[in-house]
Amino acid sequence: MDSSLGTPKDSLDHILIMMTALIEPLLKKASEDKIKIKGIGLGVAGIVDTANHTIVDSPNIPILSGVKLSEIVEGRLGFPTKMDNDAECFLRAEATVGSATKIDNVYGITLGTGIGGAWWNKGDIYYGTRGLSEPSRMIVDFNKGTTLENAYHTLTQNNPLNLAVEAYRGDELARRAYEEVGQLLGLACVNILNILDPEAIIFGGGVIESADLFLPAVKKNLEERMPNASLRKIKILKSNLGNEAGAIGAALLVN
Amino acid sequence: MDSSLGTPKDSLDHILIMMTALIEPLLKKASEDKIKIKGIGLGVAGIVDTANHTIVDSPNIPILSGVKLSEIVEGRLGFPTKMDNDAECFLRAEATVGSATKIDNVYGITLGTGIGGAWWNKGDIYYGTRGLSEPSRMIVDFNKGTTLENAYHTLTQNNPLNLAVEAYRGDELARRAYEEVGQLLGLACVNILNILDPEAIIFGGGVIESADLFLPAVKKNLEERMPNASLRKIKILKSNLGNEAGAIGAALLVN
Repeated sequence: MDSSLGTPKDSLDHILIMMTALIEPLLKKASEDKIKIKGIGLGVAGIVDTANHTIVDSPNIPILSGVKLSEIVEGRLGFPTKMDNDAECFLRAEATVGSATKIDNVYGITLGTGIGGAWWNKGDIYYGTRGLSEPSRMIVDFNKGTTLENAYHTLTQNNPLNLAVEAYRGDELARRAYEEVGQLLGLACVNILNILDPEAIIFGGGVIESADLFLPAVKKNLEERMPNASLRKIKILKSNLGNEAGAIGAALLVN
Repeated sequence: MDSSLGTPKDSLDHILIMMTALIEPLLKKASEDKIKIKGIGLGVAGIVDTANHTIVDSPNIPILSGVKLSEIVEGRLGFPTKMDNDAECFLRAEATVGSATKIDNVYGITLGTGIGGAWWNKGDIYYGTRGLSEPSRMIVDFNKGTTLENAYHTLTQNNPLNLAVEAYRGDELARRAYEEVGQLLGLACVNILNILDPEAIIFGGGVIESADLFLPAVKKNLEERMPNASLRKIKILKSNLGNEAGAIGAALLVN
């Protein structure tokens, strides 16, 4: 569910009609190609309570908050349907068939309009006690109460892709803004490392194509902040499944 | 290893002599009481690489950095000896026989001269990939690079117990400083919750006797910051093993 597709936000019925219109041609194509369909996987921006099949909080499409979307889709289309947060889908894909394959303990950060995060440990996503972990709400300035997500929105002026285009065109301010994004993410990585000590951190999401604008600053900040030589050996990886990672991870839910 | 005991910091030999002087009367007493000794457990302030039996970083007693202390003690005293970080010992004790018994997923924060932290999940301490997680190094001000430990030192003027005495005597500045400690810890809890989503957070360490000076502010900040009603139901617990928690947790290492 990516709101940039122009998802109608006003009514749940409209959203379901649009989803069905997206899914049915795929079902038809699979049937023509004699591909057996095991089920449907949904990647959702927001907090998903996987145990209760409920979207707890959907910031981009508020009307979906509290909705048992996977149950509704399963009822309408007749295939077993599972859903998960989109960052968790991304990481599931990268850890299963992408850049982080064979890494047992890896943290994933997705960068798009907003920031998402997820943790893969010992062969599965870690969901926490209530399935409610949300690293974008990490506080990055305790005095002002600024969250990671707020700081990222401010630096990228709510349009990171546009800012990247400006940076590549030679706009010095845009380039510097991306360096600050890298610093911000580097310090977020320091916090994740000091709490979780994963083997690797993998970056993905729509902004990852512009990784050269911010990844060097991420690595520089990590080098400077981590007091321990061995801790500097953390692997910083890039998604290699690109924009398909979320969809692949959602499909893996029903695998 | 608590430097406040007046541990000699100048030579490893002096430290070992003092440790032996502390341990031998206990061994003698156990022998007189016909108590079978299974081994010796050491709780160490600093970063401990348990897999390699090495103190990686010992900020209070720098001469212990890089030392395989448990192997040396085992060689000298002839009992199987294990060691772990003191915050991890604290949490092992609380999760096994203290306030957090029966809680499957609990984060522990120790407050003394400095701050320590550890995570108990599914019946054991989580050690991370390199055993190097150190939540006190969480960054609390991304602009200035201030760490949680730095901010705590500043607020408590490097002497939290003395500051508590002043607060109880009615010193308004000391009381306010403890409220700010509570705010700081509340926001650190927000970060831990947004990354790990544990069922509970337990506070301990030497300063826990003064919990009424800061725990209300911890809870208030959590309430205000956590966007999700169910996330507010996080349990905030207090150690009930007191100053013995670390020693009990160290003993449990050889249980």
